[in-house]
Amino acid sequence: MADFELKAYLGERKQWIDAQLEKLFPAASGLEKSVVEAARYSLFAGGKRLRPILCLAAAEVAGGSPEAVMPVAAALEMIHTYSLIHDDLPAMDNDDYRRGKLTNHKVFGEAVAILAGDALLTEAFGLMAEMGSNGGFEPRKILRVIGIVVKAAGYRGMIGGQVIDLESEGRNVDITTVEYMHIRKTGALISASLEVGAILGGGSEEQIAGLKRYGHHLGLAFQITDDLLDLEGEAEVMGKTPGSDLAKNKKTYPALLGVGRSRESAREHVAEGLRALGIFGETADPLRAIAEYLLVRKA
Amino acid sequence: MADFELKAYLGERKQWIDAQLEKLFPAASGLEKSVVEAARYSLFAGGKRLRPILCLAAAEVAGGSPEAVMPVAAALEMIHTYSLIHDDLPAMDNDDYRRGKLTNHKVFGEAVAILAGDALLTEAFGLMAEMGSNGGFEPRKILRVIGIVVKAAGYRGMIGGQVIDLESEGRNVDITTVEYMHIRKTGALISASLEVGAILGGGSEEQIAGLKRYGHHLGLAFQITDDLLDLEGEAEVMGKTPGSDLAKNKKTYPALLGVGRSRESAREHVAEGLRALGIFGETADPLRAIAEYLLVRKA
Repeated sequence: MADFELKAYLGERKQWIDAQLEKLFPAASGLEKSVVEAARYSLFAGGKRLRPILCLAAAEVAGGSPEAVMPVAAALEMIHTYSLIHDDLPAMDNDDYRRGKLTNHKVFGEAVAILAGDALLTEAFGLMAEMGSNGGFEPRKILRVIGIVVKAAGYRGMIGGQVIDLESEGRNVDITTVEYMHIRKTGALISASLEVGAILGGGSEEQIAGLKRYGHHLGLAFQITDDLLDLEGEAEVMGKTPGSDLAKNKKTYPALLGVGRSRESAREHVAEGLRALGIFGETADPLRAIAEYLLVRKA
Repeated sequence: MADFELKAYLGERKQWIDAQLEKLFPAASGLEKSVVEAARYSLFAGGKRLRPILCLAAAEVAGGSPEAVMPVAAALEMIHTYSLIHDDLPAMDNDDYRRGKLTNHKVFGEAVAILAGDALLTEAFGLMAEMGSNGGFEPRKILRVIGIVVKAAGYRGMIGGQVIDLESEGRNVDITTVEYMHIRKTGALISASLEVGAILGGGSEEQIAGLKRYGHHLGLAFQITDDLLDLEGEAEVMGKTPGSDLAKNKKTYPALLGVGRSRESAREHVAEGLRALGIFGETADPLRAIAEYLLVRKA
């Protein structure tokens, strides 16, 4: 475990995922091509590919082939990208930059940005549906996967979290509400990435539940460390301005719990996540390394 | 056929679909409930339920039970509703009213309106996926249906049509482009409604193709008569202001072809649609009546 080269692993996986996304969501040629161009602009704007990496890793831990689950991994990244495009819109967070690049609506205009997000969400379900007809998976399993992704991405998950986030602005909310929000806004899709990877990798129900639980804690640790970074990080490493959450009066963990208790909470969630991986051998080392990395991340 | 009571049929079907939508997309109770409330506002804002009516009718023509296909019919209406919410946004068509009621963003604000549309689109795929696990349909068939809906709703269909529409504003476009746009923006989802109804109703490939072809022509006839109504209709019957397309310099059929040739084209598409139904008996009378009605519609 100490020897596991996380940086090289993440770099290789990202490269592989980028190449597959290129094939799975290629440029279009008809009169409608601009919306695909806009969608691809954000899809290839330097994302870390965390969700697909987790999905592929979960499939391997469960005994499956990462190649085979690539379409659902790509679909998860497309859903994540659509949510970023819509979240950045003037009516939402009104962000001009993301990862050091202009946001979608700053380049393509608001109308096309909205449609590009819609297109990514729609086509993500198309990629998943195709896995059952052409990908060699049992169709019933794919339908289960789609149901899980819908729950994680829809109003019971990511969309619900975003609306709570918007409605919390300028109001006094407690840590319970902030956690309820983050479990949905960020945690649900991360957890689902592991769950569907495990299902498609052929995992037992116990293995699926373990990976899902790991994902739940990883998602919370990710959010808490993200909040801490926003407060303390260095602008050049992060590609955005530190303190921007504070400036927007966002309800973050450090704002509500203080820095010390936020760090402690992140450590606890990482420990819980590692515990959920206890049933797995060294195939789960990448997942262990990812969880531990959150506690020392700089970007 | 002459005896078929279209008005009563449409009224009964609409009532049935409304009641089922109420069950299939109920109000939520968590902190995220406002986005569901917003989505339901538009979902129950007086739509004619054309797509679900067509889907149910196609299932019956193909020999299946309309009850069984209700979830996909509801999903199609949810996708249609999401597209209206997003199209009405200030960045898109900037409409304050639809069907005589305030548009979603005028009531709930832009941010929630965007998310409400996203939620309807996402949950629509959830309803379809559930049909394979609980609805008694072969999972492979449901995956085929999802693939068809993705193509019709995504950038190769509805979203593509909308982006072409936006980009055509203030530019000289010919009738070929306008038709290419309408086939995607309106036609694709209408045609898909018939196709997936036919598939789930157990139709043969010949029957599926016939109903899809009917849908293609119905969609175009619908759009042309919609354009004509906008030009000539009465405000109180339509629930919107006649001439609004003209005021926005929209590229309509009458603007490009003139009223006479537009009427003729609508008649031709209705005739082609009826021809595509030639292989069916009187079970297809509702579809025949709907096509013929387009030529005399007042709203």
